[in-house]
Amino acid sequence: MKNFQHLQNLKNLLPTFLNILGNKQNLLLTEIADKKPYLTDQRNRYNGNALAVIFPENKEQIIEIIKLCQQHNIKIIPQGGNTSLCGAATPDSAENNVLINLAKMNQILAVNADNFTLTAQAGATLLEIQQAAERQNRLFPLSLASEGSCQIGGNLSTNAGGIHVLNYGMMRDLCLGLEVVLPNGEIFNHLLGLRKDNSGYALQQLFIGAEGTLGIITAATLRLFALPKDTYTIWLDVANLPTAISILNLMRNAFDFNLSAFEVINKNALLKVKNNISDIQIPEEFSNKKTENSWKILADINIFENAVNEFNNAENIEQWLYKNLYENANTNANFDILNIVIPQNKLQQQQLWKIRKSISEAQKKSGISLKHDISLPIDVIPDFIKLCGQQLNSHFPDINIVTFGHLGDGNLHYNLSFDDEVKQQNLLLPENQQLAHNIVHNLVNEFNGSISAEHGIGQFKINELTKYKSQVELNLMKQIKKVFDPNNIMNPNKIFISD
Amino acid sequence: MKNFQHLQNLKNLLPTFLNILGNKQNLLLTEIADKKPYLTDQRNRYNGNALAVIFPENKEQIIEIIKLCQQHNIKIIPQGGNTSLCGAATPDSAENNVLINLAKMNQILAVNADNFTLTAQAGATLLEIQQAAERQNRLFPLSLASEGSCQIGGNLSTNAGGIHVLNYGMMRDLCLGLEVVLPNGEIFNHLLGLRKDNSGYALQQLFIGAEGTLGIITAATLRLFALPKDTYTIWLDVANLPTAISILNLMRNAFDFNLSAFEVINKNALLKVKNNISDIQIPEEFSNKKTENSWKILADINIFENAVNEFNNAENIEQWLYKNLYENANTNANFDILNIVIPQNKLQQQQLWKIRKSISEAQKKSGISLKHDISLPIDVIPDFIKLCGQQLNSHFPDINIVTFGHLGDGNLHYNLSFDDEVKQQNLLLPENQQLAHNIVHNLVNEFNGSISAEHGIGQFKINELTKYKSQVELNLMKQIKKVFDPNNIMNPNKIFISD
Repeated sequence: MKNFQHLQNLKNLLPTFLNILGNKQNLLLTEIADKKPYLTDQRNRYNGNALAVIFPENKEQIIEIIKLCQQHNIKIIPQGGNTSLCGAATPDSAENNVLINLAKMNQILAVNADNFTLTAQAGATLLEIQQAAERQNRLFPLSLASEGSCQIGGNLSTNAGGIHVLNYGMMRDLCLGLEVVLPNGEIFNHLLGLRKDNSGYALQQLFIGAEGTLGIITAATLRLFALPKDTYTIWLDVANLPTAISILNLMRNAFDFNLSAFEVINKNALLKVKNNISDIQIPEEFSNKKTENSWKILADINIFENAVNEFNNAENIEQWLYKNLYENANTNANFDILNIVIPQNKLQQQQLWKIRKSISEAQKKSGISLKHDISLPIDVIPDFIKLCGQQLNSHFPDINIVTFGHLGDGNLHYNLSFDDEVKQQNLLLPENQQLAHNIVHNLVNEFNGSISAEHGIGQFKINELTKYKSQVELNLMKQIKKVFDPNNIMNPNKIFISD
Repeated sequence: MKNFQHLQNLKNLLPTFLNILGNKQNLLLTEIADKKPYLTDQRNRYNGNALAVIFPENKEQIIEIIKLCQQHNIKIIPQGGNTSLCGAATPDSAENNVLINLAKMNQILAVNADNFTLTAQAGATLLEIQQAAERQNRLFPLSLASEGSCQIGGNLSTNAGGIHVLNYGMMRDLCLGLEVVLPNGEIFNHLLGLRKDNSGYALQQLFIGAEGTLGIITAATLRLFALPKDTYTIWLDVANLPTAISILNLMRNAFDFNLSAFEVINKNALLKVKNNISDIQIPEEFSNKKTENSWKILADINIFENAVNEFNNAENIEQWLYKNLYENANTNANFDILNIVIPQNKLQQQQLWKIRKSISEAQKKSGISLKHDISLPIDVIPDFIKLCGQQLNSHFPDINIVTFGHLGDGNLHYNLSFDDEVKQQNLLLPENQQLAHNIVHNLVNEFNGSISAEHGIGQFKINELTKYKSQVELNLMKQIKKVFDPNNIMNPNKIFISD
């Protein structure tokens, strides 16, 4: 029910918000057209309301806004670059929402090369942070498709992953310190650049991945790494997934932390790119072998400055690959390698990575698909792929399974669609969507995997979380939410519905 | 006050405990002499009481014990190898304590080489875990002095550190999954081997470093790494700390993750070893330079299998060291290197590491010292060392400052004593102990460091934590404790005193 008087009361507060923002009109959007881009998620699945979209310039303003919201039971939706794939930063349709976007708090506060740390405000984009580190001969390794627009506060709130988790870890592993404005307006000030700190409970860890439900992250101190001099990229064509896992193990044994990416792409994913992305060059398949289960691997090896390290020398890496992978393939049944392609310059490298990075766009162009962001113990992935394919096919004959992702850390994007238009419409019926999700997620659960590897829960997977998380964990989460946010004003009804 | 009736009531419960343990007498110690080793910490600072020392054989027994304890308000002290340096696993003097030692739950449950994971019960020793990984050609990198006796559950509960944090991280970074019996007898079952899992709050992180106050860790899934083929060790003699930091940066840039340890030892620490440890060979000092502020560096470089990687070749690393460190020292004022020593075989390597590993023992032999386990941003360490030394000397002239530790991750052990017996006794007076702690910890706090880098809080640093943690964080910790353990039965009065 719409309550005009309540709405009017809320609107009467707008001048107070504006006053907090130093009366800068551009920091407070209230017109529908102005607010619209912030009230819809990037996949356009969710649309919400907000009294205003607010762009605070400092944490003191955030504190005042939060206190005002507490007084009037106004809900707060924190937002970064608005690139969530699960609707984590999109408000619901309630009238008493305000959206706080961190875009104006985007400063790099310090780069400390000797301590291998960088401190930034939450609104700095991932790309700005990568570049600031690089200017000091350091690497900030988090890398994902939306890095040009996503904000580090959002990366922290969703514990972002991406292509370098294999050796550098998730956002959680890359964060040393946090500053957070809590729902009661207090500041959690733990902006420390320490690698070792064992002084009480790891409160900071709770904010990472909490999707803005426990407070608003306003700044962070991040870990930096030595900047590789160069990256050596290879593209492999293998007949089956067990071969991909054997190669992964061999390369991890040989290159250890220098192996910085190990991605896989199945035939359907490659086809989507081939058919939907222009100006793309896909390495030719030379093999005459039966390749219906073939996969492509895209791997990166970091090369460092050190003059005596022969990784400097592409020829030597090539020799290693030839000897340990290609020749091996002729004598070892676990190595069903069809081809190895080695780009000879930066441009060719980028062309290969463009294939991998275009998959999502290619899928979007070819229509709607049912998406899953799953992780599994690496050794069970071949069995999962086989079984899940069989189960899906038995309910949905000829279903198109597009699988790609980060084999190196067990994370696959597993997306479903049909080429046939009628079958596709059928798949999108709610009962069929649910059936397909159930098949995939039940099997993930049986194999001790996760139904959300790196995209989070947001609004999209609330029901799934309720289904697959133990009651013990859900209860603890809800009680912790109450400790931090007893009035449930901070990004309500994300991850779970508060009691 | 001693209440005999209450004590008798508690003693009447012993048969019930024994029954839970399948009536195996050896799993329930009640005689004072039997219990004694478990009721005293290894530094002999704390001595406590317990009705019984219990050795459960499985988690079902722990659940029953906890439920019994809840019914009768009996406090539970979980204990691993009893190697805490802060009294975290030692009971207080209350009558209603039972101590649960995990030693009988010590099985390695699985080593999954393809997934680079190992699952073990909490009572497995760190050494057993290292060895189980190595048998599968994998590395579990946590390494610390007590590894032969400390248990992995204790390592998790204290978020242990050690010498390989530089590239492999703390225990927190090495843990993928946990199984915990909660204070209400429920099981937190998150024994997953996943590198990516973003499905709700990071509850698991709370147990790591909670020192057994939120539940009893019963099993864990750990991350494994590629097993280095060999380790290349170097010993450097440098004139000052800024030179050590310059070398650290240069070596990180060149070797990145392959640099697996970077330890420093000051002159006083070296002297303690020289004077108190027999059968030790310390590299000769050749320099005629004034070396009163000189430091020794002990660093390890991992060497991997890969045949084309010239790190295989000790000669080439030597060339790199000669060119980038030794020659550089002649032209660069930031490189005041006095000598570089390179062991020529495993035995010589071990002899160098024996120096580093003997420091604690050497200190113990030379008398009591006031210890600090601090971490600081690496770049401020030289200033801290200088200032803290000045402040201590102004109050305690000629104080003996023994400093050593993990420069690579900013963690120093900073210990104080006197050679002079009268001055030493004076230092140990409570008011002087407090003054010395205040000087060190106030300065650590000013430099944005931590007063407990890797040893935790336990009983030893409760007052310090109250002093240096913000009220905001302390309040949150206490509220979280209440969520997990509302009746305060689990390792009470460790980390902080519950309200």
